[in-house]
Amino acid sequence: MNVADWNIVLQNIAGNMDVSIINIGDELLLGQVVNTNASTMSRMLVEAGMEVKHVQVVADDYAAIREAIGGTLAGTDAVLVTGGLGPTKDDITKKVLCDYFGSELVESNEALDNVRRIFAQRGYPLTEVNRAQALVPRCCEVLNNDLGTAPCMWFGGEHVLVALPGVPFEMEWLMRNRVIPKLQATFQTGVVRHKNLLVQGIGESFLSDLIEPWELSLPPSLRLAYLPAAGMVKLRLTFRGGAGELDPTPQYLPGLYELAGKYIVGEDCETLAELAHKRLIAMQATLATAESCTGGTIASRLTSQAGASAYFRGGVVAYSNEVKEAALGVSHATLLTHGAVSEATAREMSDGVRARFCSDYAIATTGIAGPTGGTADKPVGTIWVAVSSRSRTEAQLLQLGSNRRQQNIDRAANHALAMLIRML
Amino acid sequence: MNVADWNIVLQNIAGNMDVSIINIGDELLLGQVVNTNASTMSRMLVEAGMEVKHVQVVADDYAAIREAIGGTLAGTDAVLVTGGLGPTKDDITKKVLCDYFGSELVESNEALDNVRRIFAQRGYPLTEVNRAQALVPRCCEVLNNDLGTAPCMWFGGEHVLVALPGVPFEMEWLMRNRVIPKLQATFQTGVVRHKNLLVQGIGESFLSDLIEPWELSLPPSLRLAYLPAAGMVKLRLTFRGGAGELDPTPQYLPGLYELAGKYIVGEDCETLAELAHKRLIAMQATLATAESCTGGTIASRLTSQAGASAYFRGGVVAYSNEVKEAALGVSHATLLTHGAVSEATAREMSDGVRARFCSDYAIATTGIAGPTGGTADKPVGTIWVAVSSRSRTEAQLLQLGSNRRQQNIDRAANHALAMLIRML
Repeated sequence: MNVADWNIVLQNIAGNMDVSIINIGDELLLGQVVNTNASTMSRMLVEAGMEVKHVQVVADDYAAIREAIGGTLAGTDAVLVTGGLGPTKDDITKKVLCDYFGSELVESNEALDNVRRIFAQRGYPLTEVNRAQALVPRCCEVLNNDLGTAPCMWFGGEHVLVALPGVPFEMEWLMRNRVIPKLQATFQTGVVRHKNLLVQGIGESFLSDLIEPWELSLPPSLRLAYLPAAGMVKLRLTFRGGAGELDPTPQYLPGLYELAGKYIVGEDCETLAELAHKRLIAMQATLATAESCTGGTIASRLTSQAGASAYFRGGVVAYSNEVKEAALGVSHATLLTHGAVSEATAREMSDGVRARFCSDYAIATTGIAGPTGGTADKPVGTIWVAVSSRSRTEAQLLQLGSNRRQQNIDRAANHALAMLIRML
Repeated sequence: MNVADWNIVLQNIAGNMDVSIINIGDELLLGQVVNTNASTMSRMLVEAGMEVKHVQVVADDYAAIREAIGGTLAGTDAVLVTGGLGPTKDDITKKVLCDYFGSELVESNEALDNVRRIFAQRGYPLTEVNRAQALVPRCCEVLNNDLGTAPCMWFGGEHVLVALPGVPFEMEWLMRNRVIPKLQATFQTGVVRHKNLLVQGIGESFLSDLIEPWELSLPPSLRLAYLPAAGMVKLRLTFRGGAGELDPTPQYLPGLYELAGKYIVGEDCETLAELAHKRLIAMQATLATAESCTGGTIASRLTSQAGASAYFRGGVVAYSNEVKEAALGVSHATLLTHGAVSEATAREMSDGVRARFCSDYAIATTGIAGPTGGTADKPVGTIWVAVSSRSRTEAQLLQLGSNRRQQNIDRAANHALAMLIRML
């Protein structure tokens, strides 16, 4: 069998199972809650080698839910439904499923044990309303929900339907531990592996032009995705193959580095904050931050990760000139001569916080995030970033050319984290 | 006409126009991007007095888009479609719309002028690919997009279809300035007004029990929504009425304050950070922050708002004990005797940052955000919050009883902001 044939076989083995998602909830249609469940589920399914064909959101309404299920199930391998499984009167998914599958509600011993366990854990008495959580359609299989009282229900057959609770952390746990493994076993979806590369310092379209020859050389079992964020791009290389099939990623990576190596900051992380976090922990090095225009965003991103206290000594949000002088030791003369938004100030902020907080490395930002406050010399989007180690300090100027405040903050934060990682 | 009849008339005048949303984009089905467009659009439509019946997400695929439009348009007053309007080969919405409405693509002078204007602004030459952005189906009306080159297209008739670009800030601007006013004029949706109240210090279900008698007394023209966030609840009271109808909100508000006044932190803001921001600016007072467990989140939320430099002098992210001592003046003895997570440390952090940064007010947080790091005495979720003015310092203990790090950080940040606002 030649390579071309082999690739056709691979495509037939992998990636041909499709899924539809139905998210139920008035709060989603009122715009009170962003539907993160849809994107979380889609990402997990795609990473597990399945394809999401369609997402829909419907109200907590019997007819709307029934119509959505009826219009979807026959045309797709599996339908995943979230929401409407709580004990209150608004939650009617179970009633719809019972009627749709011509079944009846019965008390599941397994689900009841789980409800009892969770209430005992929380030290609450079990009420009748809560006991009703253990009622499920007779024809379904209960997938145990370790994190909550709402059961996850699997309706098997040629087309599979799975009903999950809408609470995001319960849904995510059930997807990872119950639903995706069972879907993979049922539909034999093959092997899927991902490789993430964080790229910074080049725009998405320039990157795409730069690596086009390499991208065109990839075999069909490898798929490349561009995931742009503020001031950076995450490249994701996905391998899909049959059992025993060799993942060709390692033999293709050097070609990518040859073309775009100088822009690749690191691998196997989702964000630059995660990459900096892991590197600093591995190196047993410490960090301090001095933020003006980013206003605590860098510190907040680092410390939102468990274990940040191992390396993060602290930071100063130096919004006023007085704080830059008093808390960071920026000299009055520098602020007078060069201004707060200048290379000299950024360097003194970075050196100052490193010295005062006794850290191995430091980051500093100072600039005009906007939407107002710019001048002819220093328009909105002018931002200086500095990073320091024990032996040297580097500074770079960003001219973001935009007056969108949050975007400028996010881009400056990502630029600073990338500069730090390159110095580590 | 008695009150009951009048209310029935009101309900018939207002809120009976329904909308479906179709968001097009492979990136949404791959889970690479969270579909914030759907929630933004839903919220704007609901606030403008319309009802969102259904949201669906489909791939950049001719058949999928055509099926979604065909299956939706006849059953709803208006269908709003986002995405697929760019100049690249993936973007096929215009082709589908042309075929669906039996029209043909023509160059719109208005759209071309807009493309020219935007390219001139950016200083780029106009290429053939970009010029193609001005092609639209002959049967549509172009709604001018001030922020981008993709046109917004209105297809009128008994059932209206509007196609918008998927870029969030362009979509939002077009919704606010073009699409919603035109939908309101076309469907005569009546008057809609909102009143937001920020409530803190009571859980959603307890709040609901507490104000139930008041909620039951509301006339049908007023609708109450609970919008819970980390450690707080936003109550939104929505009035919908016919032209000239009096908004009864002012006469009902005192009843709410009578029952729950002590938990209401303020009105007419979306977040506690926005409320603190506005109050401090109005008072011409200044603020400094000293954050341990919240790691810069409070500073970052305040400074993400334009104009924060008017009151925010700066902050310290005091992650290590050394920084608490050196940068905030917390005494070594306090840290030894009471520990970093203690009332005494929180008070000294707050007083220290206020004195050192010469501000009128200060906020401090210190605690164990988790998921690990707790002890029997101080389990994960134990957090002290302090706020100071020139004349006094207050401290409160939170026992959040959860090991979910981000949630604990967000709840502590909101608690601290509410304490500050109450002190102002």
